[in-house]
Amino acid sequence: MPKISDQYRDERRAHILAAARRCFLRDGFHETSMQDLVREAGVSSGAVYRYFPGKDAMIVAIAEENLRDVVAIVRESARTAAGPGEAVAATLEFLSARHAEDGFAAIALLVWSEALRNPALAEHLRKSFEAAAAALTGPAEHAGALVDVLLCVLPGYLLQTAIRGPGSVAAIPSAVHTLFAGKPSTGHEN
Amino acid sequence: MPKISDQYRDERRAHILAAARRCFLRDGFHETSMQDLVREAGVSSGAVYRYFPGKDAMIVAIAEENLRDVVAIVRESARTAAGPGEAVAATLEFLSARHAEDGFAAIALLVWSEALRNPALAEHLRKSFEAAAAALTGPAEHAGALVDVLLCVLPGYLLQTAIRGPGSVAAIPSAVHTLFAGKPSTGHEN
Repeated sequence: MPKISDQYRDERRAHILAAARRCFLRDGFHETSMQDLVREAGVSSGAVYRYFPGKDAMIVAIAEENLRDVVAIVRESARTAAGPGEAVAATLEFLSARHAEDGFAAIALLVWSEALRNPALAEHLRKSFEAAAAALTGPAEHAGALVDVLLCVLPGYLLQTAIRGPGSVAAIPSAVHTLFAGKPSTGHEN
Repeated sequence: MPKISDQYRDERRAHILAAARRCFLRDGFHETSMQDLVREAGVSSGAVYRYFPGKDAMIVAIAEENLRDVVAIVRESARTAAGPGEAVAATLEFLSARHAEDGFAAIALLVWSEALRNPALAEHLRKSFEAAAAALTGPAEHAGALVDVLLCVLPGYLLQTAIRGPGSVAAIPSAVHTLFAGKPSTGHEN
């Protein structure tokens, strides 16, 4: 009998999570049953339960994946950008591209409302906000309030993408870039 | 038999909606049954069904109430403020006060995720965004991209209030005021 490799397990888990994303997007988190997920993934129910004890574990896994990706792109953008405005503008463009691929913004809305009732999910969200803030602040220690505002723009952009559609946010990345250019210490002006 | 006045009906409806808000906040929208709502409101189930055919109608009514309040305060703030930044700063402070009263920000998160599956709710949200944008743009016809960014800050502020807590957003209204002061045509700089 062949040894089941880590790579096989990772692929299998990713396959099940991709099916869960499709179900949650189509029917909502609460209206999706484990049976729906099993059918969508095209595997046995034993295979699904081997990786995830239930839907809660799946939404946490999806949120972890999404938040890790957002924090990684904020970090990467902050490394190469001239300031936090440019870094957030680049992140917003990444989020739009991801939304076109897999409905990223709509999944974000589901995760946020689930976080109200799932402390582990809320904690992941809080830690991701802090990690993004740390990446944007960088060596400019006085950028607090500016970064706070930028961290409001990110979820607001996702909400508008999900509800008003991608066209409604098309002008925002370049506006953020312009508006926040050369303002590393705005937090201290007021 | 006394004539049931419009005022009585309005008060009765508001009483039931307030009970629905408490249930949705405590247990989530999907985990709340009509029976839970009847018990929380302390009225007969006939009384609840007289005003609302089901939970969907209640979340729409709650969202309508919230969105009407937000648009009204944006309009009022825009009339007296020196610019859109000041108007949005005043709106954010109103939202924080409302959240302390009735968990406004957490209800907003529930409404957003329900809007993914309820076209009437999504349409209400879209129209409210448009009304807020029109109020903020005012006579300065070129404020497009600036207002787009401000309309991202509003929901992002609510998300952070709900998930990270009111303390996490305390510095944001004054930062928004400062950052967006005297920038009526930012949308054209880029």
